[in-house]
Amino acid sequence: MKSALLALLLTLPLGVACAADDPLSSWNEGQSKQAIEKWVAEATQTNGKNFIPLDQRFVVFDNDGTLWPEAPLTFQLQFVLDEIKRLAPQQPQWKQDALVQAVINNDLKSVMQSGKKGLMHLMTLTHSGMTTDDFAQRVSHWVETQRHARFGCRYDQLGYQPMRQLLDYLRANGFKTWIVSGGGIDFMRVLAQKMYGIPPEQVVGSFSLSEFSISDNGTQLRKTLNGAFYDDEVMKPVAIHLFMGRQPVAAFGNSDGDVPMLQYTSANPHYKTFGLLLHHTDAAREYAYDVHPPASGKLVKGLTLATQQGWTIVDMQQDWKTVFDPAQCVPEKNQ
Amino acid sequence: MKSALLALLLTLPLGVACAADDPLSSWNEGQSKQAIEKWVAEATQTNGKNFIPLDQRFVVFDNDGTLWPEAPLTFQLQFVLDEIKRLAPQQPQWKQDALVQAVINNDLKSVMQSGKKGLMHLMTLTHSGMTTDDFAQRVSHWVETQRHARFGCRYDQLGYQPMRQLLDYLRANGFKTWIVSGGGIDFMRVLAQKMYGIPPEQVVGSFSLSEFSISDNGTQLRKTLNGAFYDDEVMKPVAIHLFMGRQPVAAFGNSDGDVPMLQYTSANPHYKTFGLLLHHTDAAREYAYDVHPPASGKLVKGLTLATQQGWTIVDMQQDWKTVFDPAQCVPEKNQ
Repeated sequence: MKSALLALLLTLPLGVACAADDPLSSWNEGQSKQAIEKWVAEATQTNGKNFIPLDQRFVVFDNDGTLWPEAPLTFQLQFVLDEIKRLAPQQPQWKQDALVQAVINNDLKSVMQSGKKGLMHLMTLTHSGMTTDDFAQRVSHWVETQRHARFGCRYDQLGYQPMRQLLDYLRANGFKTWIVSGGGIDFMRVLAQKMYGIPPEQVVGSFSLSEFSISDNGTQLRKTLNGAFYDDEVMKPVAIHLFMGRQPVAAFGNSDGDVPMLQYTSANPHYKTFGLLLHHTDAAREYAYDVHPPASGKLVKGLTLATQQGWTIVDMQQDWKTVFDPAQCVPEKNQ
Repeated sequence: MKSALLALLLTLPLGVACAADDPLSSWNEGQSKQAIEKWVAEATQTNGKNFIPLDQRFVVFDNDGTLWPEAPLTFQLQFVLDEIKRLAPQQPQWKQDALVQAVINNDLKSVMQSGKKGLMHLMTLTHSGMTTDDFAQRVSHWVETQRHARFGCRYDQLGYQPMRQLLDYLRANGFKTWIVSGGGIDFMRVLAQKMYGIPPEQVVGSFSLSEFSISDNGTQLRKTLNGAFYDDEVMKPVAIHLFMGRQPVAAFGNSDGDVPMLQYTSANPHYKTFGLLLHHTDAAREYAYDVHPPASGKLVKGLTLATQQGWTIVDMQQDWKTVFDPAQCVPEKNQ
């Protein structure tokens, strides 16, 4: 008995230490976690047949729905709506603007029905005219003052913990982590360093061209919507080539908009690549979509192609021990 | 005598070692070299008032005329002309193309007179339609087979040695070196790693959007001239913001097209910045322009602004011990 107790005492701390040392501790044991670990182990094994040289370890992550939630609205669309409300009191001419009034009255249905044209109008009001520095400050101010309606936390506390661990784990193994997302490049860059440890120059997104000018007050870069590039679908590989200048060795996404990026990555002729699609199956802790037919259409093609391409499908409900970092955000149990 | 000899013997190797260890050994002693060394020393002195944190040490270099020659033709325009000649035998329909025939007949005057429209036509023939991989191979093949008419060396042996040393020196001091040039992004990326130690993702240039497609043969990125962005003048700060997402702490150029980039850098509100303009004054070893009035117009505004902004003007003839690395390229004495 005594020696058994001693053994237990000696064993326990070690067991605890091992659990704490697991860089992917918020992932449940299972096929997804194993697939990630196996690929990384092979890619980093010098002289192994699947070794990837350090200077080729470029991996790309979608952001909306892959690193943070995208349902029911993307964070950036929520920012647009919140900005309209914040700015409206200083813009008396907006009283005649039906779309702005719909935003102020929380008439989301009308906002959605305004379609692409309406959205561009709201983008013009909130994403152009100001300097790039001013825009960054507006995003920071929004993050500091607003809380997510369902989870009750700051938006920058809502990065998925398992994905943040995955980013850290990949970087610890010499991978350069990039974001390639449909989200606005200037919007994401304000948040990506702190939330994900990804510096501005490794954040690629939808963009438009700023305008440079010099006056007595110094130089200015002012946001416009000119030359707009929407970084989704087939434009993701285009953006990767433009910004990164090379084919990635791994790609992580969650929707059919990410499929071309995964296909481009899988077609890398030089290395054994890795593809992963996050399946939103967890209505209790986050959101469930594309689970029961008829699918919403966000992730249909990707699920079909996954088997054929050997991509890993992450089942959020099954594969993730936690969704958000409990040290940052403990969502209310009942919404 | 004996002890003096001993002292000499003990001292000499040290003296030799010091000269060999000078990371800027191809720069003559003088104000330019001193200015560079002083700024780097201050920027890297922890707790000093001009200290720049490691993660903010982003510096930008123009390429044509700053890292390699641009006179009488840019390397990329020479590539265009050489490609037209190489491809012509397989393109019988080009026989009816007056501009192509002018290229084949070395009628540079007609080529230049064709203006922007003519240039775009030649760009279409040599910079679109092929895959991005195929284009990279064409550039590599060109570099391997062609020699610079005046210097007799491969084009990738013609990086300025003092600037290559400067790049190494800055990187050794924790700076991230970027190219921001009017040259084509896909063209420069083939050469920048080997010539300058600058990886593809840190090369920014003029660009257009490729086209992504998937067929039975796999995925393809094909070059087009759509969405063309000309990375010069006021568009350089725009490109820096787009690709790098932050204001640099130092900028290096050689023409008025680089002035907005230097102004944007000098306006960095957080750090003591450094600006440098390379003045081509050396007809014997390279080229001399903008030296005697009337200036050619390439570097006029920059020279005027330099004093007011505290930028360093490098006089190629005075400041550089060597122009090209003698281990790579020894130009003929008489052309």
